[in-house]
Amino acid sequence: MDSSNRIYHCLTAQQLSLNLLQDICELADKIRKIAKTKEGMEYLASLLNHKRAMLYFVQPSTRTFLSFYSACQILGIKCAEVRDPKTSSEVKGESEEDTVRTFSSYFDLIIMRHSKANFAEKIAALLNSTNRPVPVINAGSGKDQHPTQALLDIYTLRRSFQERGGIDNKKVVFVGDLLRGRTIRSLAYLLTKYENVKQYFVAPPEFQIGSDIVAYLDEVGTDYEILEDFKKVLSEADAIYMTRLQDEWDAVDGTKAEIDFKRFSLTGDDLALLKPDAVILHPLPRRDEIAVEVDTDPRALYWQQMRNGMWVRVALICMIFSKEQSIIDYCSNNI
Amino acid sequence: MDSSNRIYHCLTAQQLSLNLLQDICELADKIRKIAKTKEGMEYLASLLNHKRAMLYFVQPSTRTFLSFYSACQILGIKCAEVRDPKTSSEVKGESEEDTVRTFSSYFDLIIMRHSKANFAEKIAALLNSTNRPVPVINAGSGKDQHPTQALLDIYTLRRSFQERGGIDNKKVVFVGDLLRGRTIRSLAYLLTKYENVKQYFVAPPEFQIGSDIVAYLDEVGTDYEILEDFKKVLSEADAIYMTRLQDEWDAVDGTKAEIDFKRFSLTGDDLALLKPDAVILHPLPRRDEIAVEVDTDPRALYWQQMRNGMWVRVALICMIFSKEQSIIDYCSNNI
Amino acid sequence: MDSSNRIYHCLTAQQLSLNLLQDICELADKIRKIAKTKEGMEYLASLLNHKRAMLYFVQPSTRTFLSFYSACQILGIKCAEVRDPKTSSEVKGESEEDTVRTFSSYFDLIIMRHSKANFAEKIAALLNSTNRPVPVINAGSGKDQHPTQALLDIYTLRRSFQERGGIDNKKVVFVGDLLRGRTIRSLAYLLTKYENVKQYFVAPPEFQIGSDIVAYLDEVGTDYEILEDFKKVLSEADAIYMTRLQDEWDAVDGTKAEIDFKRFSLTGDDLALLKPDAVILHPLPRRDEIAVEVDTDPRALYWQQMRNGMWVRVALICMIFSKEQSIIDYCSNNI
Repeated sequence: MDSSNRIYHCLTAQQLSLNLLQDICELADKIRKIAKTKEGMEYLASLLNHKRAMLYFVQPSTRTFLSFYSACQILGIKCAEVRDPKTSSEVKGESEEDTVRTFSSYFDLIIMRHSKANFAEKIAALLNSTNRPVPVINAGSGKDQHPTQALLDIYTLRRSFQERGGIDNKKVVFVGDLLRGRTIRSLAYLLTKYENVKQYFVAPPEFQIGSDIVAYLDEVGTDYEILEDFKKVLSEADAIYMTRLQDEWDAVDGTKAEIDFKRFSLTGDDLALLKPDAVILHPLPRRDEIAVEVDTDPRALYWQQMRNGMWVRVALICMIFSKEQSIIDYCSNNI
Repeated sequence: MDSSNRIYHCLTAQQLSLNLLQDICELADKIRKIAKTKEGMEYLASLLNHKRAMLYFVQPSTRTFLSFYSACQILGIKCAEVRDPKTSSEVKGESEEDTVRTFSSYFDLIIMRHSKANFAEKIAALLNSTNRPVPVINAGSGKDQHPTQALLDIYTLRRSFQERGGIDNKKVVFVGDLLRGRTIRSLAYLLTKYENVKQYFVAPPEFQIGSDIVAYLDEVGTDYEILEDFKKVLSEADAIYMTRLQDEWDAVDGTKAEIDFKRFSLTGDDLALLKPDAVILHPLPRRDEIAVEVDTDPRALYWQQMRNGMWVRVALICMIFSKEQSIIDYCSNNI
Repeated sequence: MDSSNRIYHCLTAQQLSLNLLQDICELADKIRKIAKTKEGMEYLASLLNHKRAMLYFVQPSTRTFLSFYSACQILGIKCAEVRDPKTSSEVKGESEEDTVRTFSSYFDLIIMRHSKANFAEKIAALLNSTNRPVPVINAGSGKDQHPTQALLDIYTLRRSFQERGGIDNKKVVFVGDLLRGRTIRSLAYLLTKYENVKQYFVAPPEFQIGSDIVAYLDEVGTDYEILEDFKKVLSEADAIYMTRLQDEWDAVDGTKAEIDFKRFSLTGDDLALLKPDAVILHPLPRRDEIAVEVDTDPRALYWQQMRNGMWVRVALICMIFSKEQSIIDYCSNNI
């Protein structure tokens, strides 16, 4: 493992180099092997049993929250959470910066989800200036960043294609609300790091991928296509990444969705058109964009994808606390 | 211990056979003995320290929630909870089935309370069809089922009567809101498994025990009596099981309680009428149906009953994860 | 360590004798040294790993809650919490006494914050009368008591002045809302136990220190001054204790703050007037009464003060469970 691949704060998808992605994914694979036995789980739980983490989730979240919570528990990290600002001192007029600095006084790791763009980065910079800095992991901020979701997506694609030459040379189709899904933006960015990946963006015009991403794809010379006709690319896709309409943002945006989203949904009938070794992903939660009958198809990987997220977060936290070599050694000696 | 007494999901009182009840109660007795020392507690906490549990409690609950939470902690199981749907992804339009399936991706045990009848059973069936099934414990669903409450009631009666030939041949008096207390329904059912137990149902006509239960008692030939006059049976009772008016259901039912519940209450004056070795139970929380002055009477067992619930849940979870033999062996070797 | 310095319930600042304060502070110092290594943290986490604590916080709190939560985790105590009464059985009409007695059935320690004065004391007395008493720690009740805040303030002052003869002979200036800050009241009381400490109370007349405290200071013959002019005493202070306007009480009080609180604030410009070895404290959360630019001054100790609170609570809990000798022995053998 290249010792230059260090990570302290995990704030943006942009900071994840190809080498770092690879190291985290390989570490996650090792951790899963260790986790298969009670003894292995006890070893993992001994790694960071002297650490405590604060999960500060101001926005509603089930999956990401529980995934991080479970990842911490697997490593023996004791967790506390602040989720509902009403039970906290913010009602007493405290600034958010003071609130998070409070966490750094009691905890060794802050995992945060916040509605403000760049808030995690701001906090990381603030903590770096104090005499008790602690690592910050961004678990979703504003509409822009959700780096660990991108990480788990890369990890899932990597595992899906491990017998087929990896992620290089694959066709990845993004479908749905591409404008507001922060996971899409990060993944589209990270996929440009692989060789010859073609990306398709299938969405109604109102919810197409942002022009900043398109500009970036142009800049790095990635092949891509922007279209509305989902059926047209169904049979070409190596991976289909479905997303839901994020209308919880509407109150903020003032935009209103009156679009027929059935055209951007995957049904049982569509399965016959897919390649036999294609994979279907979704960051979840879903609504109607994937019919429940698709769940039992072996190409439907979204539930595994979710569990992958837990393991890749275990690996990330191990990297942050410099435990990767311990895990590599344990694997060599025990598995 | 009969190896046929296996339990995976715990969903209904009906699935609890007499043999299984006996095994769980005996296991709970052993666990309590082990728990008396720090070393014993450390042994218990090592049994399932590689497992994590989700407590999904959509309905308000203090007692049952904390009892399960404590039971998990005693066994070293790491817990996470989802209690307030507002902080979860259900606000994003996810189906409840997807929400619970999410839990099964991260956790090894799901303990759930839900307002819908049969919801736990539905979820157990759904999980059985996936490639990551996990056990489900019903911690109360709808108005019908609350099997672990019935279990703790049986355990408390069994301990109360252990010097007097067990539960067989006892007279059990149920008092209060018998229509809507799910614990009464389950316990009335389970008591038919014992020999010659006579059941009395004391309630205003509007809140008498359901006709389905009466039909079942008739079918199996259990002796019972339905009445309004509490004083009449006070002096005959071996066990008095008080319940509160469940008017939190009223909003749903449209029924409104205008009944004088004082007639269905137990006061300090009543204590003189009770048998010296009778026991007073209550599932708690109580309102006015048991006067606070009754608490100090040695026959008032409701606080111990509550703590019994914790131990019997520890035993149940041990059974689910096949740890009963480990506990039996530990007891033989150490106690 | 004097074996007469026993503490079971921690309810009021008044019960903290000078000897007990000293023992707790010295124990906290030892615990911090142990906590510097993973091995030390593992030792601490083994001390009370057979215990479980209930954190019952009915009033909003971040700091005190997380501080106790962390303190328990450091000692291996497993925590559960009840913070929002809406998710508890209180909606079913249960009395608060029954609710807390429930906690005593499942847990070995109750840490509680409540809006009612004397509620923690009442509960401690109730539990003492049952057959399962457990220790109660008051984490803030009503406007009167917050003994562990007073404890951490004493601990912080003690550490600040350890090279300068301790707390004796120092000048302590309290500033802000002295009427409603319960921490001020407790600290003013405890400081009378030290030799020749002079106290200054700087506040608008409407929010001056309560007459009961003034009467007590007169009774024990402590030197003090009541004034409005903050600048006048800035240069004399050994410690400045800033507080915020507690207007969350206004809804209850009917009083309304129309006062210019800028006169009772500390800004970057004021720093030049302070003694070079003065210390600035604040119980936090703050609003505008300390400018953010003050944070980087080495005399600003409020963030350390907060972390001190965690360690002193670890020490208090160790005292309650009689673990002080174990810690003293571990220090002798390992550090």
